[in-house]
Amino acid sequence: MLSLMSLRARIEAGTLTPAGALALVREAIAAREPEVGALVSLDPDPVVPQAGPLAGIAFGVKDVIDTADLPTQIGSSIYEGWRPKADAPAVARFRALGGVALAKTTTTAFAFMDPTRTRNPNAPGRTPGGSSAGSAAAVAAGMLPLALGTQTGGSVIRPAAFCGVVGIKPSFRLLPTVGMKCFSWTLDTLGLFTASVADAAHALALLTDRAEIERLDDAPLRIGVLVPDFCADPEPEGLAALRRAARAAEASGASMCDLALPGLYREAFELHGTIQDFEGIRALAWEYTHHRAALPPLLRAQLDAAGAIPAAAYDAARRVARAGRRDFRDMLKGEGVDVVLTLPAPGTAPHGYASTGDSRFNRLWTLLGVPCVTVPVPGDGPPLGVQVVAPFGEDARALAAASFVERALAR
Amino acid sequence: MLSLMSLRARIEAGTLTPAGALALVREAIAAREPEVGALVSLDPDPVVPQAGPLAGIAFGVKDVIDTADLPTQIGSSIYEGWRPKADAPAVARFRALGGVALAKTTTTAFAFMDPTRTRNPNAPGRTPGGSSAGSAAAVAAGMLPLALGTQTGGSVIRPAAFCGVVGIKPSFRLLPTVGMKCFSWTLDTLGLFTASVADAAHALALLTDRAEIERLDDAPLRIGVLVPDFCADPEPEGLAALRRAARAAEASGASMCDLALPGLYREAFELHGTIQDFEGIRALAWEYTHHRAALPPLLRAQLDAAGAIPAAAYDAARRVARAGRRDFRDMLKGEGVDVVLTLPAPGTAPHGYASTGDSRFNRLWTLLGVPCVTVPVPGDGPPLGVQVVAPFGEDARALAAASFVERALAR
Repeated sequence: MLSLMSLRARIEAGTLTPAGALALVREAIAAREPEVGALVSLDPDPVVPQAGPLAGIAFGVKDVIDTADLPTQIGSSIYEGWRPKADAPAVARFRALGGVALAKTTTTAFAFMDPTRTRNPNAPGRTPGGSSAGSAAAVAAGMLPLALGTQTGGSVIRPAAFCGVVGIKPSFRLLPTVGMKCFSWTLDTLGLFTASVADAAHALALLTDRAEIERLDDAPLRIGVLVPDFCADPEPEGLAALRRAARAAEASGASMCDLALPGLYREAFELHGTIQDFEGIRALAWEYTHHRAALPPLLRAQLDAAGAIPAAAYDAARRVARAGRRDFRDMLKGEGVDVVLTLPAPGTAPHGYASTGDSRFNRLWTLLGVPCVTVPVPGDGPPLGVQVVAPFGEDARALAAASFVERALAR
Repeated sequence: MLSLMSLRARIEAGTLTPAGALALVREAIAAREPEVGALVSLDPDPVVPQAGPLAGIAFGVKDVIDTADLPTQIGSSIYEGWRPKADAPAVARFRALGGVALAKTTTTAFAFMDPTRTRNPNAPGRTPGGSSAGSAAAVAAGMLPLALGTQTGGSVIRPAAFCGVVGIKPSFRLLPTVGMKCFSWTLDTLGLFTASVADAAHALALLTDRAEIERLDDAPLRIGVLVPDFCADPEPEGLAALRRAARAAEASGASMCDLALPGLYREAFELHGTIQDFEGIRALAWEYTHHRAALPPLLRAQLDAAGAIPAAAYDAARRVARAGRRDFRDMLKGEGVDVVLTLPAPGTAPHGYASTGDSRFNRLWTLLGVPCVTVPVPGDGPPLGVQVVAPFGEDARALAAASFVERALAR
């Protein structure tokens, strides 16, 4: 994979120019894209800034995020050739830092569950996950050192795990969702894909202008290992990866305990869909009214059903979500735990391309708005990962813990 | 003014057709628009649905809200002629109910404070207020029975008071801000302008599919009268209008008390700008980077300064806002009060067109995300109003209380 930090180190050392870094990316795309299919469009002749902390860094933009220079097609024929007026703030910010918005990456239509054409570069014959399929696959294939994605259910953390890259879903609204096609205004969250935790921390610190995010300090960690009992049964491989990461963290000096969540969290988990779908049918009102037949089948069926959700059910779901958000930090504190280590998905990416996989290990965390990081667990088979979760606003802690686990696994 | 409920009653009685209702609107526009200047664009030949609860109702759309059929120009040369792809959800919903999106209404650029060309139809020589100038003025001039606006500081409640119409800013995210040009994702709120409280309640109930919103029940009301001591000094006319409304409410059977807010609310009020501007410079990153010279002077200066707000100050402001949001309902309960009656602005609309007036009587309520309704106070001079405020989620109660005050004032 291409590491953002390594490319920048070479550029700063004068052994690589920003244009040279772009050339590496173009070579990788020429070699891998025909087989992976992660990109929707590519800027043929971008301006390459010579200065700035991201000069020479090409980044991908999930095709639900607005770009002024490249079409934004939302994975849907309804938006074929659509050109927004402005860059989304996250894109504008990366550009202002010297980065090059080189490519739009594939997304499932409206970031829902109907699969893309993208292939998993690290697991032949298996889905790359979704909905941020192209961003995860492009980083995994070494085509891009950085890519923007979005998560409403599990669309950053899951594809990162399936493809074997680092993914971060920061705290809710740490990154504005302005300029992103909305599915659920309570859940939609922008995130990043990179080759390493340090890369993700560096990019997020720059993007948010919060230097503390990449401090990655080495304070003693208390990690709660969680196998949720309220979603799908995890697969043996997924559990084995979690146990391996927990053992490695313990061997590196973290204090570990097993964690179980109070009933409030099961309830919150179960109500994620109520909020997502109630808002989705409203956010996509124009598309549903005028282009229902052009919506892909899974999304169409979901929206067909969403119209029947009563406002009272939505209000009740939001109250439970709010209760969970208020409780989470204190609950972890009460358990003597700094961060949660859990599964990012039931196991490896499913075989075939009919599904983007199961988001049940992600929904609760998206609903709580808490920072989550996927850390790949090295192995011989298809990629596996673990998910680090921290309280709201503690993105620095989530990344520090993820970096700790990453280093522990590398030992 | 044109009343939505009256037009609908005539259509339902068969004495007016939907096309006839549109013709009334067109006549009014032909007569008043040259002098008022409330409209940016007009659909010359709209389809007029024959059925639906809003059939025959033409509505205006503030020009920061996306429409598929009419340009959306954000009050700025940067967006001259810009055509979004989709209707914003609120527009799509009104259309699905039979309403006709007849006109885009003027807005200050990016809904900030640089004035529009719109004139106050009820106060010659005075500003109509802002930023939703066109929507307030179009309803006040009898050109439209319904118009959509937005509020980030005081952009619905204040122009409604200055123009002598009803304005409602519902609870935060009761109406999605999807498809609205974002200034501050924590503050931006969609709202409505109408000729009466019943009209506003009917439109909001239909828009949200929540019938309970227009029940306007007549439960005994306990009203806390508030003259905030933390913002500008109110003008004598403003105070007199508030006292008149309070006396009328008391005479109609409400129990009244004077209310003072704890220090937390002064602090929250003072931090509104920190949140608004920290988010504004990020939400408008593309415009600021590529078109700074084309931004109007007040907005440009505000964004120039906004870049210096530290993330820590923003985080601290959000914590105070959250504390206020959590406290407000219980605080009112502790005071034995159902709703707050307060000023919507310091007094009448300022003379001249150099300013859109003062939003200091609005910012706290926008920050708290609570429902607010402007009720006009009848009189001989330029329009004056009062503002009814209820706890979060109690939009029905805010409207019931506003209707009570409206009727009390009419006695």
